[in-house]
Formats: sequence, structure tokens, C-alpha cells
Amino acid sequence: MPQAVAGPEIERLIQLLGRMPGLGPRSARRAALQLIKKRETLLAPLADAMRIAADRIVVCHACGNVDTSDPCTICRDETRDPTTLVVVEDVSDLWALERSGAVKARYHVLGGVLSALDGVRPEHLTIALLVERASAPGVKEIILALNATVDGQTTAHYVTESLKPLGLTITRLAHGVPVGGELDYLDEGTLTAAIRSRTAF
Amino acid sequence: MPQAVAGPEIERLIQLLGRMPGLGPRSARRAALQLIKKRETLLAPLADAMRIAADRIVVCHACGNVDTSDPCTICRDETRDPTTLVVVEDVSDLWALERSGAVKARYHVLGGVLSALDGVRPEHLTIALLVERASAPGVKEIILALNATVDGQTTAHYVTESLKPLGLTITRLAHGVPVGGELDYLDEGTLTAAIRSRTAF
Repeated sequence: MPQAVAGPEIERLIQLLGRMPGLGPRSARRAALQLIKKRETLLAPLADAMRIAADRIVVCHACGNVDTSDPCTICRDETRDPTTLVVVEDVSDLWALERSGAVKARYHVLGGVLSALDGVRPEHLTIALLVERASAPGVKEIILALNATVDGQTTAHYVTESLKPLGLTITRLAHGVPVGGELDYLDEGTLTAAIRSRTAF
Repeated sequence: MPQAVAGPEIERLIQLLGRMPGLGPRSARRAALQLIKKRETLLAPLADAMRIAADRIVVCHACGNVDTSDPCTICRDETRDPTTLVVVEDVSDLWALERSGAVKARYHVLGGVLSALDGVRPEHLTIALLVERASAPGVKEIILALNATVDGQTTAHYVTESLKPLGLTITRLAHGVPVGGELDYLDEGTLTAAIRSRTAF
């Protein structure tokens, strides 16, 4: 802990900023100073936005999304396809899919992936709740939009096994060359998957 | 501007976080999500700390430091050497010197350096105020603790010229090998300065 050089109010701000992801002790000091310099235009509005977020944001009990209402805006959206559930690891993945606009269905946030190393077991994830939601009448397809990592794929297999008794269509995201990607920079696994799943031109 | 995928409260938080130094749009989203996940332990305390900072922090009219009082804690500290003024470019430099504990005097924050390229002229800095403070009875030495950059050294020369009529001792920081530094990684200018200012062993 470096020596306190500014007043306690500034030191506290620096200390809390340093706990934000992506900011270390040094960059937290720089950030604090920049914020103080922009007191009116940035620090005060940010304080308000954080206070509002801290007070109002809740986790949707159905899908695990974060929003100011429970059920969340997505769960309440009647225009979304009620036959499909998109399973994601984290809210950030939900946001990424929403930005893409690729699917207009509801989501299910698992809250992580199974990991023997980190001691994450099925009961730590919302898999039981997923099975319950998938059992609802009308649900026909579960899209597993999990990360293409070892833990992500292990989780996908486990979720598939859990859902099997329901007899639904279970799909996963396609593997292949990212749009705009250069072959030279891709790993062999991706290239192999892209060749195997090649499509007619 | 990416499509809004979360509610307006979260989007506003992401947008404001993205204006913080060191955070871009993508890392702002990640930071927002982390903050929301740590609502009780990080987001709420940070909101409070920012609100307090925004409400209470002022710029010291004497030295340019930021603090919750004006004059600042350093200017009011009677135990500090009243004969010396340490001239720095920015509050961050003042903090750095205070952390080092190298000098127990008062400071003068110039608020930047002269720069023809950026259109920073002497009247944009607090040089006139420095001359006024340096003219006070009892002041004997001015330490120019400016960055060893071209603009920093240009500013040092200009300040020296402005202070010359007062007949004070004007000093600047020594150049040399940083403590813990390896010669192999230092530039020729630093090595030349270190050789020239070599001291008896």
C-alpha cells in the first residue's frame, strides 16, 4: 500500500477504482486525477449513474440477465420466439448475442461453466432451472451458445445430457473461420472444423 | 455506437465508464458487468466515494493541488519548509514527489507545460502566480521538478527567466541512472548526464 499523499476522500476513491477490472493501483491514481479534473462533466454524472445502477439493477429470476426489472426486458418481450432458449455462460455473452441481432429468442444464463480445476460443479450453475424452463410447454429448441473452450464444451455436453429426457432439439454454434479472419492466423482445430463443415458456394 | 442491449441505466453506466482514462467501449462493458456483479461490495461504495469527491474536492487557489480544503492540506502544513517551492507540471507529479518523501516543502502546480504544437502559451499556465508566490518574503529556493521532456525543459527555461529578477536560487532535478536501473537499457543522453555528474565513491 503506497503512502497516502492525498486527502482520505481522494485516497478512498483511488483505492476503490483500483479494484475495478482493468485498473491497477497506478492507473487508478491516474484515473482518479482525470475524474477529479472533470468533476462536473464526468465524475458527478458517473457517481449518479453508479448510484442508480446499484439501487435499481436486479438479476432476472428466470433467465439470470441483469436489468432494472424482474423479469427482465428480454423475458417480458412478447415479440420474441417462445419456442427457443439460448443458453449462455455469462451476461456478457448475452449482450454480445443481442448486439449481433442474430437471434430473437429468450436466454438462459448459466452463471459460469463446469470446471474441475475451479471446483465448479453442476449445482453451482443454473442447470436445474434450465431443465425446468425447457420443460415448459411450447419450448422446442435449445441453442447452446457456450464458449468454444474445453470447459465450455464440457458444460455443453453435461447440459445436453440433462436435457435429453425432454426430447427437444439441441443445437450448438457452428465452428469455422470468423468473418474477416485470415486463415494464416487461425489454429488447426478451427481450420479442420471449417473444412469439415464446408458449404456449397 | 453499438446497439443498446441492456436497459438505459446500464447503457448510461457503460457510456460514462467508457470516457474514463484507460477504458474503451469494450472494456467499459466488461467493467460495468463486473461492477453490477459486485453491486454491494464495489459499485455502491464507489458511487458514494465519487459523489463525495465530486461534492467536496476543490483546487487549492495557492498551489493548484486538489484537496477537500482550500488552501490545501500541504499549503496549511506549518511544519513544511517555508523557504522552498517545488514547481511541478501536474498534481500527479506532486503526488509522486509526496510518495517519495524526498522533500517537505510546498508545491506549485503549473497546470501543464509550454507547447508550441498544442498552443500552450505562458498565460495558460500559473507562471504569473508562481512569480507572485516566489516574491513573498522568506522564499529562497525554487526547485523545478519538471519532466525531462523537451516541453518540460523548455518550460523550465521559461520559468527560470521569469524568476530571474527575484534573485532566488533556482535548481532542477538531477539527471542520472534511475535507482535499480540497468545501463544497458538507458539512452545515451541519460548515460552522458550520469557520467558528467558522477560523484565520489
